[in-house]
Amino acid sequence: MMLAMAVRLKDIARDLGVSVVTVSKVLRGNSDIGEETRKRVLKRMKELNYQPNMLARGLASGKTYTVGLVVPDLVHPFFAEFAKSLSGVLRKSHRAVILASSEEDPEIERQEIRTLLRRGIDVLLIASCQPNLRNFYELGDERTPYLLFDRNFPHLAAHFVGSNDLMVGEMATNHLIGIGRKRIGHIAGRNTSPSYDRLRGFRDAMAEHRLPVPEDYVVVCDHMEERGDKTGYEAMQKLLALKERPDAVFCYNDMTAIGAIAATTAAGLRVPEDIAIIGCGNMPYNDYLKVPLSSIDHGTAELGRIAGELALELTSHPEQPPKNILVPPTLVVRASTLPR
Amino acid sequence: MMLAMAVRLKDIARDLGVSVVTVSKVLRGNSDIGEETRKRVLKRMKELNYQPNMLARGLASGKTYTVGLVVPDLVHPFFAEFAKSLSGVLRKSHRAVILASSEEDPEIERQEIRTLLRRGIDVLLIASCQPNLRNFYELGDERTPYLLFDRNFPHLAAHFVGSNDLMVGEMATNHLIGIGRKRIGHIAGRNTSPSYDRLRGFRDAMAEHRLPVPEDYVVVCDHMEERGDKTGYEAMQKLLALKERPDAVFCYNDMTAIGAIAATTAAGLRVPEDIAIIGCGNMPYNDYLKVPLSSIDHGTAELGRIAGELALELTSHPEQPPKNILVPPTLVVRASTLPR
Repeated sequence: MMLAMAVRLKDIARDLGVSVVTVSKVLRGNSDIGEETRKRVLKRMKELNYQPNMLARGLASGKTYTVGLVVPDLVHPFFAEFAKSLSGVLRKSHRAVILASSEEDPEIERQEIRTLLRRGIDVLLIASCQPNLRNFYELGDERTPYLLFDRNFPHLAAHFVGSNDLMVGEMATNHLIGIGRKRIGHIAGRNTSPSYDRLRGFRDAMAEHRLPVPEDYVVVCDHMEERGDKTGYEAMQKLLALKERPDAVFCYNDMTAIGAIAATTAAGLRVPEDIAIIGCGNMPYNDYLKVPLSSIDHGTAELGRIAGELALELTSHPEQPPKNILVPPTLVVRASTLPR
Repeated sequence: MMLAMAVRLKDIARDLGVSVVTVSKVLRGNSDIGEETRKRVLKRMKELNYQPNMLARGLASGKTYTVGLVVPDLVHPFFAEFAKSLSGVLRKSHRAVILASSEEDPEIERQEIRTLLRRGIDVLLIASCQPNLRNFYELGDERTPYLLFDRNFPHLAAHFVGSNDLMVGEMATNHLIGIGRKRIGHIAGRNTSPSYDRLRGFRDAMAEHRLPVPEDYVVVCDHMEERGDKTGYEAMQKLLALKERPDAVFCYNDMTAIGAIAATTAAGLRVPEDIAIIGCGNMPYNDYLKVPLSSIDHGTAELGRIAGELALELTSHPEQPPKNILVPPTLVVRASTLPR
């Protein structure tokens, strides 16, 4: 099999009687080449099945046509679906995605970011697991534009694409209030902006309806993702042990809600009759659970699409004021929150 | 913030009074440099916080320290878990993963492979959605070593890492026979080696027990992955409409099994009393379903780990006889296949 890579820019330039610079400019999409010349060059490239050497091209143009993506856990369906949707947008523009997973470990995340920056990427997309702003700051190289997604650092002037998590918390809580519940608990995440915002939305909705939130009605947990069912089970046991137990619980995500339902039924109580439970994420299996699970859908595919488009924009125009794009969530009601 | 990339090999060579070639050889782990010199170079690199420019290094050494991964669908938990496990192994050896998804579309897959090869990768890992061998052959550049995973082309002399799908089919079917079922159907996939092998394992186990497999007891389907529940629901409706319907069904994967159970209960029948159902994949939510789902676990994390190690081997020793590594599956019994 003959390798098409053997065709060089020089060959195309010679064939057409133009300079190598002209051919190179066409390849890079430079706009100062006349339309007719552009067409001739592209036609000849196609005839010769010219395959640009991306490495050489990267060194020459300073671009790598590569986007770095750092997620805390690829197995969590949110990040998998986000990555899929993002890749779809970038593929159309001939950008590749270099994927790195931090395993929710700030030290691994730092290593991965360093490796990506050293390797050369045009944009960095990251859902950071750093607990605070300062740690994240140290990682930047002030040259590579970056875009935060899912997890924001509100005091960092950075591009951000995520769901409107304040609205997620309000929507879930208002729904539970709407079906007549008054003693509402929250199984919350720790140290990430979606955790803070969903909790704040929960508190705002409760305050607006003048409903009290006893201190022990909010159980803050780690490990919401891969073994979220176990986390939710244990958190729910704490709520069930209270003297006056809640009659509804808003869980940080669907896997913790599944664990919370399991703990509730294991204690001989019924969902939703005794305790109504709602999650977040709207996983594809929610319809098929023992108790079909109500959830807040935060439009993951849409988030990936928007992030992909913003990443492309940053490739060509790295210097622009930070954009903060929040996608509004929707409520999906199933049996776990039916009215009594 | 000062960029460490400003330190060049030249600087290190001058500081130590050695040649740039020597420093470069140390960086590449070349073995013809004396131990003492190696240590001095590495010490100085550390002092200066030297960050190799991966692009330049790639051009010089012919290596990119990058592995290309092509999956048919990132949202399917199997591929997400595989990618996670693989990345873990490669991270420890400072290799990055470039991720591409073919969306189960052979044409997109061809584009993605071309882009990866053009960009430069040290090894290509792929679960191909090409329907046949010839299509896949055309894609190779005969320079970049590759490794098939999950989906094999048996007549292609290539490295392969996957579950033992023949054993998957036998194990699931023998289990259904073991709980006393005799009329066993199979909801099968199309055009991939796991589909063929699981079907063959099913047929072998039935033949061994002298149980008949009527032609219409095998329903072959597309779209087993992202909307597998819908596929399984419709396939099961066909089996339920037969004059003599099956008393057990082995489904290609867990999502199709979930759909098959939904169709069975919608028809007023009970699982497992009237029809026992088993899937494959052992998803984390199987315990929490209306009917907890029995499944074959094919050890996804183990597959990713093995593939990662073989990929590293191929980076340093591309020329070696094809390895065919099959991981044996395990049976996980839940309520959907309890004996009557």
